[in-house]
Amino acid sequence: MKIAVLGTGGGGRAHAARLAELGHQVAVGTRDPETTLARTEPDVMGNPPFKQWLADHPDITLATFGDAAASAELVINGIDGHNAVQALGAIADQLAGKVLIDYAVPYLYNPTTEHPWPTPWGVMPRLDPVDTDSLGEQIQRALPDTSVVKAFVTQEQDTVVDPARVAGGDHTTLIAGNDADAKQSVTHLLKSYGWHDILDLGTLHAARGMEMYAHLHSAIGFALGGPFGVKIQR
Amino acid sequence: MKIAVLGTGGGGRAHAARLAELGHQVAVGTRDPETTLARTEPDVMGNPPFKQWLADHPDITLATFGDAAASAELVINGIDGHNAVQALGAIADQLAGKVLIDYAVPYLYNPTTEHPWPTPWGVMPRLDPVDTDSLGEQIQRALPDTSVVKAFVTQEQDTVVDPARVAGGDHTTLIAGNDADAKQSVTHLLKSYGWHDILDLGTLHAARGMEMYAHLHSAIGFALGGPFGVKIQR
Repeated sequence: MKIAVLGTGGGGRAHAARLAELGHQVAVGTRDPETTLARTEPDVMGNPPFKQWLADHPDITLATFGDAAASAELVINGIDGHNAVQALGAIADQLAGKVLIDYAVPYLYNPTTEHPWPTPWGVMPRLDPVDTDSLGEQIQRALPDTSVVKAFVTQEQDTVVDPARVAGGDHTTLIAGNDADAKQSVTHLLKSYGWHDILDLGTLHAARGMEMYAHLHSAIGFALGGPFGVKIQR
Repeated sequence: MKIAVLGTGGGGRAHAARLAELGHQVAVGTRDPETTLARTEPDVMGNPPFKQWLADHPDITLATFGDAAASAELVINGIDGHNAVQALGAIADQLAGKVLIDYAVPYLYNPTTEHPWPTPWGVMPRLDPVDTDSLGEQIQRALPDTSVVKAFVTQEQDTVVDPARVAGGDHTTLIAGNDADAKQSVTHLLKSYGWHDILDLGTLHAARGMEMYAHLHSAIGFALGGPFGVKIQR
């Protein structure tokens, strides 16, 4: 399958590498490929320069957001939450008629800290939107001809692409969206990643809760100091 | 042990009944006992009139918030989040030197719906505070001589007092607070309720994530339509 992963951060790289390993034809999208390839320093999260990563993944191509989306059947949004609506709205035509998986959390830049993320505990970035709207719903409104599915939100992306790294994969992943067929496609993808327990939370309204879980996820991660999974016990 | 449960709603009743069953001396606190006992209609959540419930629990006493707290060694806050800081601040002297367990979520009244709670999905009440502060921290600031522990937040209170009703009790409950001794007391109480997996998230900062989890909790509950637990898999 032709899949585009938009964004060159650690999460996007994890998906792109895993999807290529599973035999998909993967294009990574970025705002400006020349700028991305010219970087020689690690990014803000400490990931090595993208050019170096790309050299280790010769089957994966780099393109603009629009070109990557245009050639894909399924698109994964790994653009940071603060910029996602603007960047995706600009390529609405290339995303029309497709499934877009969104895992972004709408963190606002926190002016009291040097870097927006990661921030020390106690000065967590604010979420915007929060409570009565979600980034997932904002993206869906910006892309009326695309089927947005909120997924991959409640784990680190390294765990999303390889659930067996925690408790042999005995934990739960959550999805939400307005289009049942689109959710079926995402469920299929998650099963190929190794997920057994995929809980459908219903319409995109549930993206509010999925995004607002981010602070609890951080708190649990800080407490445990290592990877973990959330198993919903019925 | 002498324990006060402040609030006469379903959550407070669940704790009071279970604590009495465990042999504790329980006082339920309310703003005005005469008014509480005069009610003949079910409350907004559909719970039967408190007088009826009290008649079925003859070992439990009803008192004002202040009198209930004054006579207790440990206090559980079941006052709704919107009123908790004001109501607890007014009895700061009676709470001084004690452990206060807070499980409230700071829902704001939603003027677009007839009732603040429960609201239909899609018009969830807003949280205030959110992100950069929490109700737990607000309560701690209002009660500098009390040790506040945020707990009981990530389950229905019926499940908190009887974890075995879900998956034989194989799920996780979360606590946070600034005082290690106070958290030890709460851990002891949780074990007496039947909890085996109690995860300490650190200082009260973590109350932010615990409270913001409320929307995801609701979404999962709506999706499953029955009780569930969250097991943190390491």
